[in-house]
Amino acid sequence: MTANIIDGTKLANQIRSEIADGVQELKAHHNITPGLAVILVGNDPASAVYVRNKQRAATEAGMIAEDIKLPAETTRDELSATITSLANNDDIHGMLVQMPLPEHLDPVFAIDKLPASKDVDGLTSTNSGLLVGGRPRFIPATPAGIQQMLIRSGYDPNGKHVVVCGRSDIVGKPISLLLIQKQLGANATVTICHSRTHDIETITRQADILIAAIGRPRFINSDMVKKGAIVIDVGVNRIEAPERKSGYRLVGDVDFDGVSEKAKAITPVPGGVGPMTIAMLLKNTLEAAKSYVAQQ
Amino acid sequence: MTANIIDGTKLANQIRSEIADGVQELKAHHNITPGLAVILVGNDPASAVYVRNKQRAATEAGMIAEDIKLPAETTRDELSATITSLANNDDIHGMLVQMPLPEHLDPVFAIDKLPASKDVDGLTSTNSGLLVGGRPRFIPATPAGIQQMLIRSGYDPNGKHVVVCGRSDIVGKPISLLLIQKQLGANATVTICHSRTHDIETITRQADILIAAIGRPRFINSDMVKKGAIVIDVGVNRIEAPERKSGYRLVGDVDFDGVSEKAKAITPVPGGVGPMTIAMLLKNTLEAAKSYVAQQ
Repeated sequence: MTANIIDGTKLANQIRSEIADGVQELKAHHNITPGLAVILVGNDPASAVYVRNKQRAATEAGMIAEDIKLPAETTRDELSATITSLANNDDIHGMLVQMPLPEHLDPVFAIDKLPASKDVDGLTSTNSGLLVGGRPRFIPATPAGIQQMLIRSGYDPNGKHVVVCGRSDIVGKPISLLLIQKQLGANATVTICHSRTHDIETITRQADILIAAIGRPRFINSDMVKKGAIVIDVGVNRIEAPERKSGYRLVGDVDFDGVSEKAKAITPVPGGVGPMTIAMLLKNTLEAAKSYVAQQ
Repeated sequence: MTANIIDGTKLANQIRSEIADGVQELKAHHNITPGLAVILVGNDPASAVYVRNKQRAATEAGMIAEDIKLPAETTRDELSATITSLANNDDIHGMLVQMPLPEHLDPVFAIDKLPASKDVDGLTSTNSGLLVGGRPRFIPATPAGIQQMLIRSGYDPNGKHVVVCGRSDIVGKPISLLLIQKQLGANATVTICHSRTHDIETITRQADILIAAIGRPRFINSDMVKKGAIVIDVGVNRIEAPERKSGYRLVGDVDFDGVSEKAKAITPVPGGVGPMTIAMLLKNTLEAAKSYVAQQ
């Protein structure tokens, strides 16, 4: 058996084209262009790449993308002032602070400063709580992207046993909350595993749908996967690759070669969850702009 | 094997006595008496009993208990006005709306009206989101009570596989979120099952700790339980009992007689989770009063 490759880039392009249509409609009928602001503090090269990708995708969808680069030594008060200024800017409908922040800045503080109505990453307490209650305003982009991938590839989680490896605030917890809801495209039985789980392979082998979001390169091997499972790889890990000019390459949390011999379908890294995350961020930004219009 | 009975009444009395000490301290040092307001709309007899129990427990702990009874035909605006008035009352530190509300009133609307700082049931979006992030202000009382029962009985969930049956906003979801956190008294691997779970007994039989919160009388039978499991029964179901004056009796979601032959420990109904829920509501009210003092 060789797994069907779930092409995140292709699906994301589909969604981005739907979003571009929505943006045109908003411009035509309401003379509003959705605006996305991304705050980047410091000089982390990986973060710079992510921010650039988000911006490019936003402008390609017809949005305004504002990019606020702050020096690594930015103080808490300065970051706070920047957030407040964007919160009060009517041309900005969605905003986010790119993580990780430099060590001296508390990510929780930064997230709590975001107005829930513009928090397109869906990470503020209010938005997180709305997701728990099954009435999300903005579903965090990666979980939203995973759900869309499953649905659009014909692997509806309804009634399936989903095993999530990882309990982060941006992936593990929200994807679990999303997929247990009594709703279309959800309704799964969900198990959440993590670093303290005993005998983790006994659990992962039960998964109809396995979602790996632990940040350990190729952690999930073929012995940990049930034959015929759907495998979603959220990991983005740099490993050394001396043969490359950059000196590194990206691999997921799943041993792709081994697992793709056993799984029914699998997402690649890169080209899987990553592009979907960006597409769903744009979707949230479009929704934020629509809500803004509805409240005028 | 006959299971150890986890005595919720005894544990709750311990906690209530700790809370009573805290109340006395607050009175002595800050001249503040914690105040709990419970809004009851309509004439549901079971709700009336719950409200009375909460009030009695609050006054026994030295708190002020305010009981606001509204007629079944209360409008949304009237309920809203009552909530706002209590929200602005400095003598009230914790408040809740007893569920279920009459059909014409939306529970989500009522909960959203509560100020997060007084929402001692921990059900507002903000408080729910804070729980997701592992920094709860008020843990919903039933999940908090279950966690305390486990810890105080020597069954720390750390590293265990917890299976939660039920995905309600007040029990299933928050207990899952509570027990997966990377924290003391948590750190469990958690599976959430529900009405749409296929082959549920295969999953429940894996549970080191099984939490039943589905609202179906004696749904969990001994075939569904692993030998030596810890079984927490959240169910409170009325079943007919013609031999009783009331005509009914209360049973849990677990077939107590059968399961107690197989489990290592089990909570009874009544006298298990119920009293713990009330104790933890008082604890949240005491914490709310302390936060009020800290902000003066």
